[in-house]
Amino acid sequence: MATVYRGVDGAGKASPLSIPDVLGPKQILLKITHASLCGTDVHFLTSGIALGHEGVGIVEKIGSEVTQFKVGDRAGAGYVRNSCGTCSYCLKGQDVWCHERSAYGEKDHNTGTFGTHYIGNETFLHRIPDSLASEHAAPLQCAGATVYTAITSVAKPGDRVGILGIGGLGHLAIQFASKLGYETVVFSSSARKEEEARGFGASEFVVLGEAEKVSAPVDVLIVAGSKYPDWEKFMQKNILARTGTIVPLSAPAENFNLPSTPMFFNGYNLHSSLVAHRHVHDEMLAFAAAQGVKPAIETFAFSEEGFAEAYQKLKEGGMRYRGVLVR
Amino acid sequence: MATVYRGVDGAGKASPLSIPDVLGPKQILLKITHASLCGTDVHFLTSGIALGHEGVGIVEKIGSEVTQFKVGDRAGAGYVRNSCGTCSYCLKGQDVWCHERSAYGEKDHNTGTFGTHYIGNETFLHRIPDSLASEHAAPLQCAGATVYTAITSVAKPGDRVGILGIGGLGHLAIQFASKLGYETVVFSSSARKEEEARGFGASEFVVLGEAEKVSAPVDVLIVAGSKYPDWEKFMQKNILARTGTIVPLSAPAENFNLPSTPMFFNGYNLHSSLVAHRHVHDEMLAFAAAQGVKPAIETFAFSEEGFAEAYQKLKEGGMRYRGVLVR
Repeated sequence: MATVYRGVDGAGKASPLSIPDVLGPKQILLKITHASLCGTDVHFLTSGIALGHEGVGIVEKIGSEVTQFKVGDRAGAGYVRNSCGTCSYCLKGQDVWCHERSAYGEKDHNTGTFGTHYIGNETFLHRIPDSLASEHAAPLQCAGATVYTAITSVAKPGDRVGILGIGGLGHLAIQFASKLGYETVVFSSSARKEEEARGFGASEFVVLGEAEKVSAPVDVLIVAGSKYPDWEKFMQKNILARTGTIVPLSAPAENFNLPSTPMFFNGYNLHSSLVAHRHVHDEMLAFAAAQGVKPAIETFAFSEEGFAEAYQKLKEGGMRYRGVLVR
Repeated sequence: MATVYRGVDGAGKASPLSIPDVLGPKQILLKITHASLCGTDVHFLTSGIALGHEGVGIVEKIGSEVTQFKVGDRAGAGYVRNSCGTCSYCLKGQDVWCHERSAYGEKDHNTGTFGTHYIGNETFLHRIPDSLASEHAAPLQCAGATVYTAITSVAKPGDRVGILGIGGLGHLAIQFASKLGYETVVFSSSARKEEEARGFGASEFVVLGEAEKVSAPVDVLIVAGSKYPDWEKFMQKNILARTGTIVPLSAPAENFNLPSTPMFFNGYNLHSSLVAHRHVHDEMLAFAAAQGVKPAIETFAFSEEGFAEAYQKLKEGGMRYRGVLVR
């Protein structure tokens, strides 16, 4: 029986996935082989929706009008599942911002990448380059897409890119930023993470409490953790360069409480970046394959028990750095 | 005797300006004819510095290496007075962000555009196009430069530009935005300002308390008043379009208290814009002359009494819209 995992009583419980006899013309049925766990899944854990938005699988069946995939192909599924295709955002390739988009947790609650099967839409599934292992491709479907978009939409050649936080997002942001050719400065609350950060490609490592010790200001600050930093401190000109841009990669419950004076007089900017538009997602996968960006993963069994174990580890902050369920 | 007005006991008091017998090689002595009053002057009114950063005058004397102005030329002086000329900001034409810049209130406290004379530096003075009257050119030196920069650095063809607040900055922002070809939506707390707003070029007028009644979302929101709006309200998707950008034109004492969830999930951006780089300043003056952008002004005598009168009117919120002292 095809199943998905629904968030029930704070855990992912297997429940049936209803697969129609005839798929929609542009639908694709994936047999999931790998799915990874993101903070957003934790957020939806008690919501009852089918969980998962970072998965890789093998095409098992295609709708009558699918032209880009055939049975047996490998495909990835991420955060955005559909968009209207006709609004100005879609027409300019910014499908993430389509008001009619289907994004994880917003619509289509009966399919998710944690499950034996996943039903996706042709242009919102992504071909995986041959040289990427599925277990590494899975975390790229949301985490990789998110950090790649944030960096490439803001950083300019020669910029120094700061990455705040080394976790599921941060450890990928370091790899992408350094392989994109940026001086990559990692800020972390834990001095013990220096070796790992440098291993991922950091050119400089700064302990968060001593951020002013950074050797030169960063032009871009990617906030890859789930908390905001002490903005006042980061808005010193020797930490964030004048005209620098802050890109938060999550929305904590707290407000941005940005001090207006340094924001204004240093020309600081705040850029919101959610995940990747389709063409950027494909570009990211190609870049990761060509440059050897590789998520650091821990694997778990593709079972309720495996999910629970991964969830527990993520929740406790012990995951290094992405938990992947492998069938 | 050459004098400046210093902020003393909450008023602009005439005090001597010491003019060196020999100017620095790149210095220019202006005989001021028109100077206008900005909120920033109010901020410095008790500081003791020579006041004024929006002035127009006639070149009376030039330093030995000045090549761009001759005696008798008309020139404008604004917020930025000098920059190092060698840092990366200067080299890319972003002199406003030079860390060594001399900006009003930061350095060079002994000269200001309120006074009989002003000592400026060649490339930080701006030639006034012939068709611009000096009384109209004066408010463009800071207010005009500020709003022109904010609009042109963010808005793209076809954007709807929202202007929040109709004052010294806002009434110019409306003119520039509409003459630059943008649908220009004015948000004002006072319904009585609709006629004026439309006279300046607004294509739509919305009372602030009913901002959700705007006919379509704005892509850019220029915050031209001295207070922040209710961000939560403005971050509804039908007021500020997804991926829209907020540009505040001042730094109130309060922090930005931006709700993270709509910021993040609607892709909103915050862009800081201070005043104009030199090349943008010149471009703005040429545009204003060619397109007939004209500050709405009230004139006052160029005297301590005239200054006090203008100051009082500005402080009470009664200025329509820029007070210009005329000699």
